[in-house]
Amino acid sequence: MEPHAHFQEQLQELKQSLLKMAALVEGMLHDAIQSLVNRDSDLGKKVMAREDEANTMEISVDEMCLKLLALQQPMAVDLRFITSAMKIVSDLERIGDQAVNIVERALSLNQEPQLKPYVDIPRVAEIVEPMVRDVLNAFVNSDVELARSVCKRDDLVDHLNDQIFRELLTYMMQDPKMIPRAVHLMIVSRCLERIADHATNIAEDVIFMVNALVIKHHADAKKMDGGNSL
Amino acid sequence: MEPHAHFQEQLQELKQSLLKMAALVEGMLHDAIQSLVNRDSDLGKKVMAREDEANTMEISVDEMCLKLLALQQPMAVDLRFITSAMKIVSDLERIGDQAVNIVERALSLNQEPQLKPYVDIPRVAEIVEPMVRDVLNAFVNSDVELARSVCKRDDLVDHLNDQIFRELLTYMMQDPKMIPRAVHLMIVSRCLERIADHATNIAEDVIFMVNALVIKHHADAKKMDGGNSL
Repeated sequence: MEPHAHFQEQLQELKQSLLKMAALVEGMLHDAIQSLVNRDSDLGKKVMAREDEANTMEISVDEMCLKLLALQQPMAVDLRFITSAMKIVSDLERIGDQAVNIVERALSLNQEPQLKPYVDIPRVAEIVEPMVRDVLNAFVNSDVELARSVCKRDDLVDHLNDQIFRELLTYMMQDPKMIPRAVHLMIVSRCLERIADHATNIAEDVIFMVNALVIKHHADAKKMDGGNSL
Repeated sequence: MEPHAHFQEQLQELKQSLLKMAALVEGMLHDAIQSLVNRDSDLGKKVMAREDEANTMEISVDEMCLKLLALQQPMAVDLRFITSAMKIVSDLERIGDQAVNIVERALSLNQEPQLKPYVDIPRVAEIVEPMVRDVLNAFVNSDVELARSVCKRDDLVDHLNDQIFRELLTYMMQDPKMIPRAVHLMIVSRCLERIADHATNIAEDVIFMVNALVIKHHADAKKMDGGNSL
């Protein structure tokens, strides 16, 4: 980052880095599910290798934010955007962690006969993956509607997760030999639910941030001071 | 917060608020486990009622931090401290969420005969509860040794969680009627593990923050500029 680059350019760079990190962890999630569904343990190991990359990106985005805060001393809108970015990047890193957790279960499951055709888990993953992408787009574009749609999809994920749990319980009760594999699959399902929760946390931050700015905007217009207030 | 109060006093106030929030969520966790162990669903419902308080405290600490950033434009040490505080408060709020998740399982379990005497779960909780307290003390006092001890305890929690899983699997295989209750207990154990993970995330932030400042301190001493650098 050039120290003399225009502040708005640096903000753009920050937005690009966040979208890049979102693409990375979304890819990790996608491949984690593929490694399970296609019983491809090599692909799973590649996901694990990308965890370091996610950690490095988190640190690098944090440093970008700290530099912007220290050197540009931004106010109001930009201040909230940058501090939100620092929170969001932690969520993204943890989404990557959950993808790795899924791979750990996939590697165990891939060594045993498949319990049942995996239908519901990929279906949940198809909902969860775009949630990660959409919520980051909602953040960089202050798009409250898109953020709200992410929150709504979380309810669907919770519902499907409950359904998967119930189905796996019936497998377990039918045949105790299925229990260990069913537990692995329950945990995969729960990891997907956790990822949807992270996306929803980010969505709530976006809604809170934009609304606070709307309220603040009205308060500012009333006070007509445009000064140091938040 | 008085706008004219001294910056160091405001930092002290921020530290006190963080410790207070840590005490709140630690109490929620403690009572959640008690509601399970003592089959006390009324206590569990009181934990749920405190979730709003945790949310309100998160927003209030965030606002304190934003005001400090905007009005005081802090540098280096204080800047990193305040932005870390904003991340940590999210972790605390999620620890409260996990306590509520434990209560949800306790309320179901309390309606059925007890599967087995609860020995291991309270034992894990006894390790996890002080992790929350200690890691916040490590943060406000920049105590790297204490932060490291929290990370070490996380390994023990992971180990005990695996042990609980294995034991519950044997119960499930012995008698399918035990499966639903065993799954609830697995999830309680996993919630405790997640809380330990949150504490460990905070501990890693503390170690990273303090080390970065040590490195930065050396760099500053070399440059002798004391200026805008991080």
